[in-house]
Amino acid sequence: MDAAGESRMGASMELSELELVRGIRRVLSGEAPGVVIAIGDDAAVVEPGRHHGVLTADMLVEGVHFELGATSPHDLGFKAVSVNVSDVAAMGGSPRYGLATLGLSRGIEAAWVMELCGGMREAADEFGMAIVGGDTSRADRAVVSVTVYGEVAEGRAVTRSGARPGDALVVTGALGGSAGGLRVARDAAAGRTDALSTEWGRSLLALHERPRARVGEGQALAAGGARAMIDISDGLALDLARLCEESGVGARVRLPDVPLAPGLVDLGARVDADPMDLALHGGEDYELLAAVPPDAVADVRRVLVERFGTRLTEIGEVVEGAGVVAIRGDLEEPLEPKGWDHFAPQ
Amino acid sequence: MDAAGESRMGASMELSELELVRGIRRVLSGEAPGVVIAIGDDAAVVEPGRHHGVLTADMLVEGVHFELGATSPHDLGFKAVSVNVSDVAAMGGSPRYGLATLGLSRGIEAAWVMELCGGMREAADEFGMAIVGGDTSRADRAVVSVTVYGEVAEGRAVTRSGARPGDALVVTGALGGSAGGLRVARDAAAGRTDALSTEWGRSLLALHERPRARVGEGQALAAGGARAMIDISDGLALDLARLCEESGVGARVRLPDVPLAPGLVDLGARVDADPMDLALHGGEDYELLAAVPPDAVADVRRVLVERFGTRLTEIGEVVEGAGVVAIRGDLEEPLEPKGWDHFAPQ
Repeated sequence: MDAAGESRMGASMELSELELVRGIRRVLSGEAPGVVIAIGDDAAVVEPGRHHGVLTADMLVEGVHFELGATSPHDLGFKAVSVNVSDVAAMGGSPRYGLATLGLSRGIEAAWVMELCGGMREAADEFGMAIVGGDTSRADRAVVSVTVYGEVAEGRAVTRSGARPGDALVVTGALGGSAGGLRVARDAAAGRTDALSTEWGRSLLALHERPRARVGEGQALAAGGARAMIDISDGLALDLARLCEESGVGARVRLPDVPLAPGLVDLGARVDADPMDLALHGGEDYELLAAVPPDAVADVRRVLVERFGTRLTEIGEVVEGAGVVAIRGDLEEPLEPKGWDHFAPQ
Repeated sequence: MDAAGESRMGASMELSELELVRGIRRVLSGEAPGVVIAIGDDAAVVEPGRHHGVLTADMLVEGVHFELGATSPHDLGFKAVSVNVSDVAAMGGSPRYGLATLGLSRGIEAAWVMELCGGMREAADEFGMAIVGGDTSRADRAVVSVTVYGEVAEGRAVTRSGARPGDALVVTGALGGSAGGLRVARDAAAGRTDALSTEWGRSLLALHERPRARVGEGQALAAGGARAMIDISDGLALDLARLCEESGVGARVRLPDVPLAPGLVDLGARVDADPMDLALHGGEDYELLAAVPPDAVADVRRVLVERFGTRLTEIGEVVEGAGVVAIRGDLEEPLEPKGWDHFAPQ
């Protein structure tokens, strides 16, 4: 991230790259453990640590993942970092360093970019990492791409492929909240509801706008014996199908045990939205789904509640074969691996 | 980079993310040193190495950095990796791992994406690194954002800020070729020249489309005593101004000594383009500019020619003060820090 020239940062519509980068550097800079050379040179230099590196990258695109007018840039910055940290958490790792590349459309204001960076900085501080570099470019639509480098002890990374028949399936927190929050935001924008004036409505919206990666929980699950783990970014149904395919196993899920986010039932009572459908297929919850030996569940659950105040719920089990079956009472039917697909016609 | 579902890759206009990612995984995967877990899980896991980490990211945007119809996707993929490797080279480091996030517009064909990945793979192989992950998303315009993790020995990274008065300024290779190639391509697209049928025209175009990062040269410059270094991505004038500002020094550049890319004089004889202007302000050459103690220049120059066949040219010197002065015979005038600015009105 280059940074030369004089700072002359305002709310101007036409920013020079130099002005912009100078402002970004100011918002993101600061002392951070392990950072040898931060933003401002050709590349950042960091201490490697003793552990293996964990690398992940995710891109958020205007019109696909967020709307410029409807999304707070601060929340967007927070989320762009958090969704990447979530991938590191799903390996059982800790985030260390991040890079951000920003595509900015012509009409975007400097204040918007600074708030975006402020949100990235808040997330970085919260997750104990530092944003050490990146790039800015003109673009037609706003694009925020973040890369996170994290660490995990050698041989301790939890992949998607280690689940075995007999393992219990567990999820952190509750599901469907992000999709519910998106519905609340869309209905409010269309003037269809007053849900934003309710506590449950605001709580759902917060889950959508500021998802918190489960870093400590992921490490506790890894330490507690999790054999396979994935973060639920595209919905339980699709992400469980991925875990099963990579592990070469099937799964049975007890729908009544799937934890629904607080507020979903309120939402379902008011609009045409099925809470269970949102929980299974909504996506963007960034909770962790893990396969854990049955006799390890109780201990891990206790650690998560005591240490992080996070609920861990057993929702089913890993079985031989392939595919996921959903169980509700005496009914059993295949759970379609349907979820958030950026490439499906919307 | 998720990769579940069955592969059904064709030249279809409407791709599912699963199909696409499966194809990408196939093109980019393979054994690579240090890669513990590659594309296909929540994140990649890599061995850390004994050295410090070097992190950099750059974004290429359709309509800003490339045109979908005019650019070969293979070359674009090669370039997206190479420009990041160039930033690692400018620190004196070696690239190890890369991640790619792709924003893909609706009309884009699977074959285009596979060729893009093929180009990234070729660059990764050439620079001795591996692409270990990333993300794909729908977007309005094509966006290719690449992050590279490299290594440099502790305390050996060459920043932009170490230049001292008296240092010689040296550049690798020759300048202006990329801007000349862009001019050739644009004139050809408009039917204004037949330069693409000439050897010099094709050679300029190749410099624009497939810039080669100077990895070995950067390491040799670092080992040879370079005190400050930067890669010339936005033109000699602007990047030299950055190096001077970060080092708190000024510079004097002898224009007749600035090495012009082969073909530039041919181009200048045929169209209204000044070779020296392209060399100073054109950008995207990805050559290295370094400040080197004067008595170290001869040795480094010999190493670069013998080991890499790369020319090293002394173009001026670092002086006290601020700002860059251009010298031509008895004439001296300020060299404007003008170059490629994505945010300037085009």
